[in-house]
Amino acid sequence: MGKPAKQHGKLFLPDIEFYYVKDIEARCLASLLGIAESMYNQMKEGRVPELKIATRTKYNIEYNEDSEVWVYGDRRSVRSAKTVKGAYMLLRMAYVIGFLKEQLNANKSSTLRELYYISENWGMAKFNEQQESDRLVEDLEILTAFQREHFHIRPEEDGATVIGPLRIREETRRGMREIHCQDDVGEGGYQIPVNVDKIEFVDHDAKFVIAIETGGMRDRLVENGFDEKFDAIIVHLKGQPARSTRRLLRRLNTELGLPVVVFTDGDPWSYRIYASVAYGSIKSAHLSEYLATPAAKFVGIRPSDIVKYELPSDKLTDQDIKALNAILQDPRFNTEFWKKEVTLQLELGKKSEQQALAKYGLDYVTDVYLPERLTELGII
Amino acid sequence: MGKPAKQHGKLFLPDIEFYYVKDIEARCLASLLGIAESMYNQMKEGRVPELKIATRTKYNIEYNEDSEVWVYGDRRSVRSAKTVKGAYMLLRMAYVIGFLKEQLNANKSSTLRELYYISENWGMAKFNEQQESDRLVEDLEILTAFQREHFHIRPEEDGATVIGPLRIREETRRGMREIHCQDDVGEGGYQIPVNVDKIEFVDHDAKFVIAIETGGMRDRLVENGFDEKFDAIIVHLKGQPARSTRRLLRRLNTELGLPVVVFTDGDPWSYRIYASVAYGSIKSAHLSEYLATPAAKFVGIRPSDIVKYELPSDKLTDQDIKALNAILQDPRFNTEFWKKEVTLQLELGKKSEQQALAKYGLDYVTDVYLPERLTELGII
Repeated sequence: MGKPAKQHGKLFLPDIEFYYVKDIEARCLASLLGIAESMYNQMKEGRVPELKIATRTKYNIEYNEDSEVWVYGDRRSVRSAKTVKGAYMLLRMAYVIGFLKEQLNANKSSTLRELYYISENWGMAKFNEQQESDRLVEDLEILTAFQREHFHIRPEEDGATVIGPLRIREETRRGMREIHCQDDVGEGGYQIPVNVDKIEFVDHDAKFVIAIETGGMRDRLVENGFDEKFDAIIVHLKGQPARSTRRLLRRLNTELGLPVVVFTDGDPWSYRIYASVAYGSIKSAHLSEYLATPAAKFVGIRPSDIVKYELPSDKLTDQDIKALNAILQDPRFNTEFWKKEVTLQLELGKKSEQQALAKYGLDYVTDVYLPERLTELGII
Repeated sequence: MGKPAKQHGKLFLPDIEFYYVKDIEARCLASLLGIAESMYNQMKEGRVPELKIATRTKYNIEYNEDSEVWVYGDRRSVRSAKTVKGAYMLLRMAYVIGFLKEQLNANKSSTLRELYYISENWGMAKFNEQQESDRLVEDLEILTAFQREHFHIRPEEDGATVIGPLRIREETRRGMREIHCQDDVGEGGYQIPVNVDKIEFVDHDAKFVIAIETGGMRDRLVENGFDEKFDAIIVHLKGQPARSTRRLLRRLNTELGLPVVVFTDGDPWSYRIYASVAYGSIKSAHLSEYLATPAAKFVGIRPSDIVKYELPSDKLTDQDIKALNAILQDPRFNTEFWKKEVTLQLELGKKSEQQALAKYGLDYVTDVYLPERLTELGII
């Protein structure tokens, strides 16, 4: 195998080094306990405790020139024990911090769902629905500038599979494992773990990364040997990608310096999949610098492709039209390319799927469509 | 590693031997061409061609004593070129058989979605929607008694992941791979391929197989080392299991003689997940003898557990109540156990999730709940 992986290139907040996972967790715990300490001190000084936290709406999203991603702006809202609602919120936060402290000390982890059920025994601090506990975990992410993965809180969602000329090292409960993502896996590929920071890149022979929306198209590229022919790492997004998948793509881009392209269907939901990879999402803008890959290029089906390739298409639904109009207002899509394509799509009234390319045979996508587009973009 | 895998135990129709995949495909192709030949001969004899095919409704489902699964009965419906609809159907079938012949000869495969798009160039034989082509592939499965996997038609759905003391051998495009599902994989486990018959079991140290509905619970068992402590193979069902997942469970049960238990939430949708593993589904009753594991035991959350363990619960929705009443009428659930539990659930008006056990801490499920239930069932 060729190039050794760069020893962790430039990363933004917080700066993660694989070998210091334990150290990160110590800092993360200190940061969590700092929140509890702040509440305690406020009370000791005879003040009603409060916390200030970034407002999470699209009115508080701004573009960061340095990191090229969208992050939260300066607007803050206050959670104060002056109101009953605020007091409950701070009480629950104290319980959650206590639970996370225990969990980190025992080197255990739990899901967002489990955390919700664990609160059953917290008396007045019990959550009424999971949305509340999920949101509180987000609050803690924003307050500490760490990620829930560092708190050892796992999502339910399933991460991506990877196939391609890449060798990784993963820290498992049975020790370190070195796995080559072509030679040591089956046709299903390497299943990435929930916490992608437990993976280290060892070496690779790849020229770029292609992230694919649907399983059918992922299997098509694998069957046609696209990874071997074009030295590509194939990542299956499985629809709207999990955080771990987005984190992996960012790491492949920033640490290995590999271009990332995103191959999706040609409809507004798919453009949002691309946007969540490239620019981050409003819901997790506090993590954009950790999860987003601003350099990611869109190689999905374009509205102009529907005309150019005479692709089989479906009529836009009312929901599609609404979503396309929302995209025209979305700051993340404020470019000539997207304005032109989305406007064209609204005129055409049509959408197409990536598998529609099968109209020209099973090899068309790997022999013609992708090579043409990747050449245009200067990737191959 | 201990026991070598039995060289393929008793299997029902068609009898599959790993080393004869090519031979199976030859027989499958012959069977497909036989359908076309039959149409041709009917026309040559001056008759209007027709096909007889099993009716796929719940009124044509019957229990097969030998194989212990539900299969289609004797009712047949006729597709005849006497009607325009029937003529189209036979024309499309001829085209699909032609496409499958080419595909099998070239050793390629395609998805159900791709097949639909490929028909774009078939003139009058073009499908109007994917449902039509999906159904035609089912017709071909019933007519040939082969599976779409043998036609090299892949689904979109994602198969299970496996972790546990099992060594498999998989035929990949890069040659044979031997993979131990604990030692050679990351925490995400081994991702099974779409066609499970490309896997061979080499050896194992397992006492049983546990199939789990949710990712959160699967990760819980892995983190708690359940596979190591109890010599268990952990399979993630990912909700309603894909065909490949059900095929894998059946093969683990019949070829390795391992008991299979299914661990789900306590609601009607989860009982259906169990039923589709154990008894097969109405939609694919022609494949029950290939996909179902009649010996599979339910270890999911029972309505009586909600009372016994005072589990956190949610109110049944109207949909839930409707589904529970349907289960009381479903022949697959016609046992004392299910009648009692489902009736109790309707009285309680409640449902609980498997992760609700976290109320008693993160280890309760692996230290108390599952060991108790598995002991009751004589599995451990």
